[in-house]
Amino acid sequence: MSELAVTPRTRLKRRPQRGSFDRAAIDAILDEGFLCHVGFVHGGKACVVPTVYARAGDWLVLHGAQANRMLRALLEPQNDACVSVTHVDALVLARSAFHHSVNYRSVILYGQAEEISDAAEKHEALRVLIEHVAQGRWKDVRQPSLEEFQKTLALRVPITEGSAKVRCDGVIDDAEDLALGCWAGLVPIETRFGAPVRDPQLRDDVELPAYLAPYTRKRGAR
Amino acid sequence: MSELAVTPRTRLKRRPQRGSFDRAAIDAILDEGFLCHVGFVHGGKACVVPTVYARAGDWLVLHGAQANRMLRALLEPQNDACVSVTHVDALVLARSAFHHSVNYRSVILYGQAEEISDAAEKHEALRVLIEHVAQGRWKDVRQPSLEEFQKTLALRVPITEGSAKVRCDGVIDDAEDLALGCWAGLVPIETRFGAPVRDPQLRDDVELPAYLAPYTRKRGAR
Repeated sequence: MSELAVTPRTRLKRRPQRGSFDRAAIDAILDEGFLCHVGFVHGGKACVVPTVYARAGDWLVLHGAQANRMLRALLEPQNDACVSVTHVDALVLARSAFHHSVNYRSVILYGQAEEISDAAEKHEALRVLIEHVAQGRWKDVRQPSLEEFQKTLALRVPITEGSAKVRCDGVIDDAEDLALGCWAGLVPIETRFGAPVRDPQLRDDVELPAYLAPYTRKRGAR
Repeated sequence: MSELAVTPRTRLKRRPQRGSFDRAAIDAILDEGFLCHVGFVHGGKACVVPTVYARAGDWLVLHGAQANRMLRALLEPQNDACVSVTHVDALVLARSAFHHSVNYRSVILYGQAEEISDAAEKHEALRVLIEHVAQGRWKDVRQPSLEEFQKTLALRVPITEGSAKVRCDGVIDDAEDLALGCWAGLVPIETRFGAPVRDPQLRDDVELPAYLAPYTRKRGAR
């Protein structure tokens, strides 16, 4: 559980020091984000689609409409999903063009998705998707009707094959470039959540819930 | 030039009102970002890798080490790249679990990558990559040495097949849910660039260049 096994497609060939198979490191990156890019093969070609996800223990949960092309493709046998989650933390501006870089924390997972067909498990998956976006919200919202429930397809991808990759460092220039007069350093980047904006049709007496005042997300180490 | 042609894999089957084949809309989303997720097929399976890109006219430019697995795979014949660029602008918190959503602007491009092997064109691609990240920086940095130049592989993907997809709207709840006491509205999201942080080894007399004071990126309409 604490480390994912290395496989041919997850072995890090270059800069292995940036990679990790540690579940805690992987989970921290997954839990901070909510948008992933899902790769799949469709008609023999690669497709990448951005979508919302949630982590539910040892699974990553995806959902969408029953006819969703990506979800349907992921349910084909032997069509492993590749799920990528990336947080960009800084531009790294070196003195040399060559050593420009980006500080980031990313996870790539591979695995065959499966439909969550059991009704109780599917209900739990929908709850986790809402709670992953705003913890405490599930109890406030109008729960899915039977029709909405049936219109929704929920999948899970096991967190068993994959890795985290992190660059969290300063400028790394060649020694002979350090005396150059070119500015060098980092431009920090953060995802900022602004003050919630009320729906104009919201009832006047409804107050902002505590979990949105302010809205925050767990932050992994960087 | 003003509209990309629709193909079987770019036709929008669901919610076509969110899609656009307009080059100006596509370019605005590409120009605002600098990180993409590239999908490709490797050993018959989908892979997705985050990487930096730049737009150079009608091409998207990617680069990396000569041995880079993703770049090498993209140069295989019939292995079209799928490049995805996504900006998330808000969480959309509806009264119903079902109508929760995200405001976003995204582009997906498909195309066969080709190596930029002509030395002058490759030099220009490296310039554009730096300028895409920080306009005005190329003239400041130490240019690539011959060795660095040869160690770098630069590819381009044509901007000919793909689409933009945008959700830029408020909460869309069912009419019968509007009177519920559940808070509804948007949580705005923005990518914030902080004040540049000097490399500790930077010469004391080097001042922050104008293009970093402050660092900003073009913003597309949202």
